[in-house]
Amino acid sequence: MAKTSQLDAIARVAPVLRGLLAEPTGDDDHPHKLVILKNFAGKQKPRHALQLDPLKAGESDEELRSRLAASFQNYEAKHKAGPEIVSLPNAGTFQVVKLKATSGHDARLVGRTALVTGAAGAIGYGICKGLLDRGCHVAITDLPGERFEKFVAEFQKQDRNRIIGVPMDVTDSKSVANAFAKISATWGGVDIVVVNAGLALACPLVEIGLEAFRRLERVNIEGTLLVLAEAGRHFARQNTGGDVILISTKNVFAPGAGFGAYSATKAAAHQLARIASLEFAPLRVRVNMVAPDAVFSGGAHKSGLWAEVGPGRMKARGLDEKGLEEYYRNRNLLKARVTTEHVANAVLFFATRQTPTTGACIPVDGGLPDATPR
Amino acid sequence: MAKTSQLDAIARVAPVLRGLLAEPTGDDDHPHKLVILKNFAGKQKPRHALQLDPLKAGESDEELRSRLAASFQNYEAKHKAGPEIVSLPNAGTFQVVKLKATSGHDARLVGRTALVTGAAGAIGYGICKGLLDRGCHVAITDLPGERFEKFVAEFQKQDRNRIIGVPMDVTDSKSVANAFAKISATWGGVDIVVVNAGLALACPLVEIGLEAFRRLERVNIEGTLLVLAEAGRHFARQNTGGDVILISTKNVFAPGAGFGAYSATKAAAHQLARIASLEFAPLRVRVNMVAPDAVFSGGAHKSGLWAEVGPGRMKARGLDEKGLEEYYRNRNLLKARVTTEHVANAVLFFATRQTPTTGACIPVDGGLPDATPR
Amino acid sequence: MAKTSQLDAIARVAPVLRGLLAEPTGDDDHPHKLVILKNFAGKQKPRHALQLDPLKAGESDEELRSRLAASFQNYEAKHKAGPEIVSLPNAGTFQVVKLKATSGHDARLVGRTALVTGAAGAIGYGICKGLLDRGCHVAITDLPGERFEKFVAEFQKQDRNRIIGVPMDVTDSKSVANAFAKISATWGGVDIVVVNAGLALACPLVEIGLEAFRRLERVNIEGTLLVLAEAGRHFARQNTGGDVILISTKNVFAPGAGFGAYSATKAAAHQLARIASLEFAPLRVRVNMVAPDAVFSGGAHKSGLWAEVGPGRMKARGLDEKGLEEYYRNRNLLKARVTTEHVANAVLFFATRQTPTTGACIPVDGGLPDATPR
Amino acid sequence: MAKTSQLDAIARVAPVLRGLLAEPTGDDDHPHKLVILKNFAGKQKPRHALQLDPLKAGESDEELRSRLAASFQNYEAKHKAGPEIVSLPNAGTFQVVKLKATSGHDARLVGRTALVTGAAGAIGYGICKGLLDRGCHVAITDLPGERFEKFVAEFQKQDRNRIIGVPMDVTDSKSVANAFAKISATWGGVDIVVVNAGLALACPLVEIGLEAFRRLERVNIEGTLLVLAEAGRHFARQNTGGDVILISTKNVFAPGAGFGAYSATKAAAHQLARIASLEFAPLRVRVNMVAPDAVFSGGAHKSGLWAEVGPGRMKARGLDEKGLEEYYRNRNLLKARVTTEHVANAVLFFATRQTPTTGACIPVDGGLPDATPR
Repeated sequence: MAKTSQLDAIARVAPVLRGLLAEPTGDDDHPHKLVILKNFAGKQKPRHALQLDPLKAGESDEELRSRLAASFQNYEAKHKAGPEIVSLPNAGTFQVVKLKATSGHDARLVGRTALVTGAAGAIGYGICKGLLDRGCHVAITDLPGERFEKFVAEFQKQDRNRIIGVPMDVTDSKSVANAFAKISATWGGVDIVVVNAGLALACPLVEIGLEAFRRLERVNIEGTLLVLAEAGRHFARQNTGGDVILISTKNVFAPGAGFGAYSATKAAAHQLARIASLEFAPLRVRVNMVAPDAVFSGGAHKSGLWAEVGPGRMKARGLDEKGLEEYYRNRNLLKARVTTEHVANAVLFFATRQTPTTGACIPVDGGLPDATPR
Repeated sequence: MAKTSQLDAIARVAPVLRGLLAEPTGDDDHPHKLVILKNFAGKQKPRHALQLDPLKAGESDEELRSRLAASFQNYEAKHKAGPEIVSLPNAGTFQVVKLKATSGHDARLVGRTALVTGAAGAIGYGICKGLLDRGCHVAITDLPGERFEKFVAEFQKQDRNRIIGVPMDVTDSKSVANAFAKISATWGGVDIVVVNAGLALACPLVEIGLEAFRRLERVNIEGTLLVLAEAGRHFARQNTGGDVILISTKNVFAPGAGFGAYSATKAAAHQLARIASLEFAPLRVRVNMVAPDAVFSGGAHKSGLWAEVGPGRMKARGLDEKGLEEYYRNRNLLKARVTTEHVANAVLFFATRQTPTTGACIPVDGGLPDATPR
Repeated sequence: MAKTSQLDAIARVAPVLRGLLAEPTGDDDHPHKLVILKNFAGKQKPRHALQLDPLKAGESDEELRSRLAASFQNYEAKHKAGPEIVSLPNAGTFQVVKLKATSGHDARLVGRTALVTGAAGAIGYGICKGLLDRGCHVAITDLPGERFEKFVAEFQKQDRNRIIGVPMDVTDSKSVANAFAKISATWGGVDIVVVNAGLALACPLVEIGLEAFRRLERVNIEGTLLVLAEAGRHFARQNTGGDVILISTKNVFAPGAGFGAYSATKAAAHQLARIASLEFAPLRVRVNMVAPDAVFSGGAHKSGLWAEVGPGRMKARGLDEKGLEEYYRNRNLLKARVTTEHVANAVLFFATRQTPTTGACIPVDGGLPDATPR
Repeated sequence: MAKTSQLDAIARVAPVLRGLLAEPTGDDDHPHKLVILKNFAGKQKPRHALQLDPLKAGESDEELRSRLAASFQNYEAKHKAGPEIVSLPNAGTFQVVKLKATSGHDARLVGRTALVTGAAGAIGYGICKGLLDRGCHVAITDLPGERFEKFVAEFQKQDRNRIIGVPMDVTDSKSVANAFAKISATWGGVDIVVVNAGLALACPLVEIGLEAFRRLERVNIEGTLLVLAEAGRHFARQNTGGDVILISTKNVFAPGAGFGAYSATKAAAHQLARIASLEFAPLRVRVNMVAPDAVFSGGAHKSGLWAEVGPGRMKARGLDEKGLEEYYRNRNLLKARVTTEHVANAVLFFATRQTPTTGACIPVDGGLPDATPR
């Protein structure tokens, strides 16, 4: 992968390029047909190649966009065709790939790229799988390590071209920026951001240690802020809209005794997403939320969040793992087990833009009247 | 169609039969593969025909179900196959039709039947079309008349087998019961009920006439109550769950000055649906809401609701029809025009049970922060 | 009391007079010091008496106000004092009474008049008593009859000058208009309207009879509409602002299974009050809500609402009256019994305008997290 | 003031003593008549003095309470009177003061003590003044410094006995614990906690620096957590219930673009208060919220929060200070200026327990329909 200074250049250039290469469709909900910009490593350049001048000192995103737009126009006027290859010194050489929907794929997701945070867990599994199965490119991001490597490898078995793993620490702004840049280096940009990383803690207010609480603030609040902010900057460059889906929780609407640190930090994250729905709307970016009740596993992956809080909850209620799952099932109106596929379906509802909706939240909880948005 | 006393018998018998003939799937979200019970009009009965005893005086639904279940078991034990034809004196002779999903159809809707109220208008158009296109059987219901006949005829051109028109006045309990019975007579029962019929009125509180207000109470509130209640009785007989989707409005969450009669009566309707989500959950029936902002047309159909309130709104704001549509578009965050297809997509999200959700509401409004459920 | 045609004249004239006689205070929250206009029955007119011309055919409220304002100015210019007596043919002769706060009274309520609907019951008792004890004039309104007469008589023992009973049927617009007129005939106008009349019904949706439902629509919805509309017209004439407080219910926020008719009709009433908060704000009228959980009695008065639904609730839960009260007490966080004094305190908070708040609701329920506005 | 080890002892002992000396009243809303425990500095001990054994190593709060309760009983059995002076080695000697309500004071607040955080500003001014004027003892807490000293001195001019200034940094758990201890050393304990300290920041999400954001997390979220937790521990020892009122904001309900850091951190604080309403209810502690829109000054005190964000807001809207106040006034329904007295009135509504309410929020905003809890 690219080095830091090159990454910075890619972060600026690739989404602008990708945005300019997107074809307008006239469809309000899906206004662009997007391309994938692949790192061109070939030796023989194809017939249509466009060489652009490097990023200038102090050049703003808007100036860059204008300059590149002019270059594209000149190129097309001259060659009666768009470039198949685009080079920009320092940033790299990109191959313009136009994808067609394959059977079984959702045309609205083909050629689009998604970044999922905290992906290497139960809910992340379902979301990544849902997006991948319907034709999306998916960047799995999570803290680096063996768990992460295995998780990515499992997905890459399914489709090597449309899956990448990008280590990312949501609490570190540089790490977040680098992750967006690496995805831009690989595919040209990001269209869908699923903010899923989260930590839980079960503890009454009078016993919460400040350090434990701060861990949740860092991941649940600051992590959400940093990812939203980078997404906002990225979407502004790409200029083709975008979708953000935050995995919220029923505890935002109906916080539970003993769950204060989680409920409060998630309430802040949820609020940041509401703010983003206001601030990013002029960029045609939609920001929505999905609020699941407890999800215990996805594929073979146990929920990390529940690995943390489950034992205490079991003890508090005198239940084993199975009993705890039954407890959560029985507390909802439909006596439903909430699965990672369910969460993915709600994410896909928003990601495929079935309705012009932003700032809203779908509960995925089997029916919990006290937690239903009203 | 059947006469009244026969209709009463069919209303009781057909859904019980259909429920007993449904095959369990083991899938919590879609627990049954449903059959269509077609009126058998042939002369030559097929090999497997089951003749049942008539409905007994005072026989309860539960007794009927037990008796028929026993008859089915005996029949299958004896013939090593289920009946292809089932007769019950007074109610009629039904042919058991098992449908397969065709390409382009959603398997989760194939063999399922939907009743849409107030269907012969803009929003109804999109909902009926969305359900029909994905494989559902659709009963178009609305007040009888030329508008209704034309609307049904237009749809029947697309698929004569999966569309029926059933005149229904939602404010008349007998009319509502008859509509359910007629659909049961034609297809065996109803699985999805879309409560869409509604009237609007733009008028400040101090000027509302009681008669005008009562018209809205009758349609928006009593109409919702009568349809929900009949649906509840029907689903209890059929015993295969069910889905109710109420077309609510952003005015429930953010009522507007001058829109009191509409906002208040729709708030009552919305509340009835919340109640139904509680009361019908033990029947595994899900009740959800969709809250669109102004939809002006669907296909070639103008919104009846807007035909009523549009002129006043235009006058109040000094706008023509186009200007009014722009006004509504510009007041939302996404500057989106809300279409009947959007509303249909939200209905389909619930009707295909993508998530275990009940009692919830998806706003379809381009992003109206003051009206977003929270 | 006055006859109908005279009542109509009083309804138009008295609040305009009273508004013109109100003294500005410069206090945003309590912008006027209001007078009481007493029916002058004396024979000897006092020194300062002003005779006005009768209401003209087709004279609008604004024209009337301008005309009377000019008469007052002329009078004061000439006599260097305001009139103590004002006569207007057809409407009557009014004595201008300026009240001083007595010890124990709240200066913000002295000289102000309140109309309470459905007053002759448990909650009404507390509200009337709370207002009376703090210095307000209180018009007790309810359906005529022995219960009503006794209730009024009990209060008149406490203060004959500041209590009147005015029979009123909230479902009849003429009856509502007459009640406002009669209060205007007695005291000059109304400043505070407490919309308290309500009916309950405990019944699952599938069993609700339409007639029973309509009784609730009439009282809970139409009754609220008619009272709000008359209040709006009255406040516009009086032009000194006003306060409306609706007694809502926790069932608006958290409707309960089996309580659909009540929850839905109260949701409509609550929504009408929200609309009124928007539409009446330009008149400086504030509209707020109080949402109590079950209140069983007030003073010696049993709740009529609970007399209706209590027996069924007791039976459903196998409880006697005491047990039912305990049940409601134990379901809230504070294990609190909700009393009619509590409801009155919330009403008084709004009626004394402690905060600039409109469209809001205070729950009075001991803490019911599922029903707390959010 | 006392030294640290003594402070620790006082923090444990004084509230237990005060709780035991409280007289039950039989009134559910105000179940105790509370005493003030004054540091006894006199030389001549009064007739009734009780000497208790020192805090034992490992003695739990419950053991301490039982032991002291037994001592009190023995004392009273022997002397037919309660002690006027109580000594406990290490913790100090306390004089038991029973207060009577003075004219103008609210009997429900006499003998009760309030701690207000972030008090030395505009809103704090109104709250402290409101509580003091009605008879409460008030501990003004804020960051130490000249501003703080002057603020306290101004209040002490009004009543030296019922005002103390206690420097406190809400982001430091030790500082918070010490503040509670110092108040306990002076008056015996705390009954009412007003969580008012807060910081604002106006900045779009994509530009928020992490350090600036963390300042808000520390004060708005962690500060709220630490104060709530210490209050919870204190109230458990005192065992006489308690009241917490959080100053929330309309931005929790209707966050504004450009106000993400504030809205999100306040949403977390608000959520912590909701949690506290659940967790502290068994202690008979009520936790409620007040949500004002912009308050610019209180007495002679400018709002520190607005000193920070005001200039940017003015610039953004091209307004001067007066213009900005007009802007906020004109955006609400009532065209009301929100004052610190209004906020104080809402705090007093809860502090005097007019209704059995917990977990609820009163908006003080002139009517902002998008921000009204629903």
